[in-house]
Amino acid sequence: MVQQNWQAVLVPSSDPHLSEYLPERWQGRVWLSGFTGSSGTLLVSATQAAVFTDSRYWEQAEAELAGSGVALVKLEGAATPAYVSWLKALGEAAGTNGSAQPTLAVDGAVMGLAQTQQLRDALGAAGWQLFTQVDVLDGIWPDRPGLPTAPVYEHALPYAATARADKLAGVREQMRAQGATHHWIATLDDLAWLLNLRGADVEYNPVFLGHALVTLDEVSLFVGEGKVDVALAAKLAQDGVTMRPYAEALPTLAALPADSVVWMDPKRVTWGLREAVPTGVKVVEATNPSTLAKSRKTDAEAVFIREAMERDGAAMCAFYAWLEQALGREHVSELTIDERMTAERATQPGYVSLSFPTIAGFNANGALPHYRATPEAYAVLSTPAGLTAEGLLLIDSGAQYLGGTTDITRVWAIGTPTAAQKRDYTLVLKGTLGLSRMRFPQGTLAPMLDAVARAPLWAEGLDFGHGTGHGVGYFLNVHEGPQSISKAVPVPDMAMLPGMITSIEPGLYRPGQWGIRIENLVLNVPVTPAVPNAEPGTPEYGRYLAFETLSLCPIDTRCIDHSLLRDDEVQWLNDYHAGVRRRLSPLVSGEALAWLQRRTEPL
Amino acid sequence: MVQQNWQAVLVPSSDPHLSEYLPERWQGRVWLSGFTGSSGTLLVSATQAAVFTDSRYWEQAEAELAGSGVALVKLEGAATPAYVSWLKALGEAAGTNGSAQPTLAVDGAVMGLAQTQQLRDALGAAGWQLFTQVDVLDGIWPDRPGLPTAPVYEHALPYAATARADKLAGVREQMRAQGATHHWIATLDDLAWLLNLRGADVEYNPVFLGHALVTLDEVSLFVGEGKVDVALAAKLAQDGVTMRPYAEALPTLAALPADSVVWMDPKRVTWGLREAVPTGVKVVEATNPSTLAKSRKTDAEAVFIREAMERDGAAMCAFYAWLEQALGREHVSELTIDERMTAERATQPGYVSLSFPTIAGFNANGALPHYRATPEAYAVLSTPAGLTAEGLLLIDSGAQYLGGTTDITRVWAIGTPTAAQKRDYTLVLKGTLGLSRMRFPQGTLAPMLDAVARAPLWAEGLDFGHGTGHGVGYFLNVHEGPQSISKAVPVPDMAMLPGMITSIEPGLYRPGQWGIRIENLVLNVPVTPAVPNAEPGTPEYGRYLAFETLSLCPIDTRCIDHSLLRDDEVQWLNDYHAGVRRRLSPLVSGEALAWLQRRTEPL
Repeated sequence: MVQQNWQAVLVPSSDPHLSEYLPERWQGRVWLSGFTGSSGTLLVSATQAAVFTDSRYWEQAEAELAGSGVALVKLEGAATPAYVSWLKALGEAAGTNGSAQPTLAVDGAVMGLAQTQQLRDALGAAGWQLFTQVDVLDGIWPDRPGLPTAPVYEHALPYAATARADKLAGVREQMRAQGATHHWIATLDDLAWLLNLRGADVEYNPVFLGHALVTLDEVSLFVGEGKVDVALAAKLAQDGVTMRPYAEALPTLAALPADSVVWMDPKRVTWGLREAVPTGVKVVEATNPSTLAKSRKTDAEAVFIREAMERDGAAMCAFYAWLEQALGREHVSELTIDERMTAERATQPGYVSLSFPTIAGFNANGALPHYRATPEAYAVLSTPAGLTAEGLLLIDSGAQYLGGTTDITRVWAIGTPTAAQKRDYTLVLKGTLGLSRMRFPQGTLAPMLDAVARAPLWAEGLDFGHGTGHGVGYFLNVHEGPQSISKAVPVPDMAMLPGMITSIEPGLYRPGQWGIRIENLVLNVPVTPAVPNAEPGTPEYGRYLAFETLSLCPIDTRCIDHSLLRDDEVQWLNDYHAGVRRRLSPLVSGEALAWLQRRTEPL
Repeated sequence: MVQQNWQAVLVPSSDPHLSEYLPERWQGRVWLSGFTGSSGTLLVSATQAAVFTDSRYWEQAEAELAGSGVALVKLEGAATPAYVSWLKALGEAAGTNGSAQPTLAVDGAVMGLAQTQQLRDALGAAGWQLFTQVDVLDGIWPDRPGLPTAPVYEHALPYAATARADKLAGVREQMRAQGATHHWIATLDDLAWLLNLRGADVEYNPVFLGHALVTLDEVSLFVGEGKVDVALAAKLAQDGVTMRPYAEALPTLAALPADSVVWMDPKRVTWGLREAVPTGVKVVEATNPSTLAKSRKTDAEAVFIREAMERDGAAMCAFYAWLEQALGREHVSELTIDERMTAERATQPGYVSLSFPTIAGFNANGALPHYRATPEAYAVLSTPAGLTAEGLLLIDSGAQYLGGTTDITRVWAIGTPTAAQKRDYTLVLKGTLGLSRMRFPQGTLAPMLDAVARAPLWAEGLDFGHGTGHGVGYFLNVHEGPQSISKAVPVPDMAMLPGMITSIEPGLYRPGQWGIRIENLVLNVPVTPAVPNAEPGTPEYGRYLAFETLSLCPIDTRCIDHSLLRDDEVQWLNDYHAGVRRRLSPLVSGEALAWLQRRTEPL
């Protein structure tokens, strides 16, 4: 910093592909600060350092940063203004603003385009400048991990229900409509989806590091050497996909002919990539066509997804049957729960990995929406000596299957729940089922549905601090766009369309006491119109969507305060349980079947 | 057009104050085309002419334009692209694009700033240019009406519950915060609110034509000479308000000193005003502080509003009591309904005028959301000979009282409603009462509540084509911003705050058959938090709002399909009717009281 005359350095949680889960090579903020949360930014000056993170991680960050000299800045709103005011305070304290224009250095190769533009503008207004042409981790991190080397493999038939050639044709049709000669793909789930390839370069998301440059007749795929074997490369070549070294991606982009028109998604490329586009090349800024296409699961994919949900449900029956008999007889902790549940899922056909780290939070731990038990700190639910704690157990878990991605949250009574716990549980349940039953016009912007899930909580002056629902991939990222059921300001991309899969997961968190979240995945399915060819101007005009609840696992009725449920809500719950029992019964036996029957009894 | 070498001229529905209801002087589109609907734009070329209007007016426009040679363009989405494609088609047909860049002329003095910018950009992309420095109506409209001359009067105590000086102090506080030395007000409701003045220059809205230039210590009020009498001018002078001729407004703006900083609301000034700002003067673009302040009615105002609602309710009791006994005995038509209801309202203390043209639509006429019976065309409900038609009667009406503005819609059974009519009615009612019961965090963006009112209709594959609710003024415009419960993309100004008054008016329209709309006005009232000083991060944290239903009139229970209402919905309706009976009984007697009691019987 001193050599370069930088007054501060920013280390984000990000990689060249704007991934949610980072390869170790880009976990520089963890290495520098010791804060291991999955979201947070480090700012370093000559004399001070601070980690900026949101409320999900405050407790963890306080613990991990204690004594390190790195301060914690609790983010309650947008991050950029917080960075800028920290820098301004720095300048005022040190008199930095007195001499020249101070500089903040950041690696533009891992910073999102829109985010960097915003930061540059905000810094400019505060008298700072932004320097982006540097990998700040190089040279200071002696044992910096290299690029991940896991092999790339094909997402095979029958699960890859749409052929690579057909997906490419669809993207090219849209490129022509936009007048684009080239399309750059930097985001890993877009890349994996488009080419029907998968990998294991990061945890939980079955993706591989790479970029693609798609033209109207060929594809350059930039991946680490040796990751694609000869047979797969030959197969890809048949679809016009040529292998290129990962390091050649940026130079290739920088060498585009001057008359090119390149389509880049401003939300899905880094500042570094955008800056590499040569002068004279026209850039079309629009959402990646693959992002929109992959959000809409095909009917063929939906068949496999329902099968994956049944497998996942069967694994949960086996696990919960074990759990209920083990309590008071065996050592059961949040860690054992994670291990046993993962082991049950791993026995299922088509299982590949978890889709995110299991959250098993007992009582106060359940009140931390992103809690993860560690070998150093975890709650014990029971011991062989017969001790059994009482309270609420929240389990949020999911897996990657070749035929789909799961994500489900349930809360269970350990012992007898209190009246207050039942009330909280029932209010959340009313939100989950209220939104699950909604029907709405195709094209409704997903955020406009958010209030329906919150209404029962709002009625009691309660709320939760996270979104109600996120998109989910098909054997891909458990968090994907473009739709989001949340307080987000809607944009046209968030329109609900047939085939989209979204979570519905309202919650309620009592810090230090317990947490509730009841989550299912739902599929947007067209509703047959009552009047098939209604005229414009009539009230029946338009297409409607309903949610098909995909997730199959009992909802603990022991936690329900019956006085708060209406008859129609009880009916929905009974219907759901009848469906769960019908579809999971053929896949389980013995204790698991008995448990399934016990927990799907009608109210 | 030929002299000036213009290829086309655009005549909007607009005036220099962007008013919803236009003084006759600016009804040039009506004069030129013969189409009298309240919204529509005329485009004229050398050989063709077309009126562009949305679905509310298609039927009316078709009738009024028939044989005129003026075509109707049915707007289904944004207007600007429709204008541009009409102009492009024109150019292609006439070879206009072959020679020079064709020109569209429009009066920039009556075009909204944002709308004009958008039009200019869209035209530019199509190879057209926009010319705005002309009043296209001058010189072609021989008997063009002059400026309206109705006197300006003071909104007096006790109704004007906040003193002019206090309102000005509030605006100036915000001007200082924005660094503004000047603030320009062109919108008539902002002007009337800020200065506690009212007028009668347009129908239904009690406003007067004028502009104001507010500085940190004085106000220049530009109004037509003779409209403010000497006594009022003297009173205004005490608050630093100086009278200036209306015609001096633009020259005054154009002569602002170069170091001025003028606050102008881009949604509330015309292109002409914005263009008049001299180079060197800095413009702060933000929502008018008065727009936000007037949307939040004070507690003192709320007291008068409740009183106005009682007066309005009493008038409706008298009217409906007459209507029910008159049917089958007297000549009753949609026109008589308007006359009698207006006459009943006019007897109430504090009554000033209607707040919008009464919509009394019987059967198929009710299916036109903006229907208005005319002496040439109206439906007859009964004759003295004893004929009584059967069906549904929709009445949407409201008035201006010194202490508030009303707007209410009810639908009544004439004879015995059919099962299909009852189903439609009950679905709409479920929407009205579902949203009326909502509680939500203060600051929730109003559009996020829209789905709650539509959900019962959506569940059956039905919808309506207008917004669910609009803001309502305090003895001011019946349509005011900034909040809007609709499918609009939310902006921060639409945050729900205490004191806002909004309509809740879902509907259902069966073209050619009947229309349903059940509308009440509601006041945003803070909910006492269950836990008064809840900590950030806890689910009780934050302030909540509930809706207080202001409108007081029975909802016709004869139209309800009981099987579609849940117990909690019946309870809400019974509670509402009990309140209506309790508050209106002291104000009515005889037949009106009997009618009130009959129509507020619990279900």
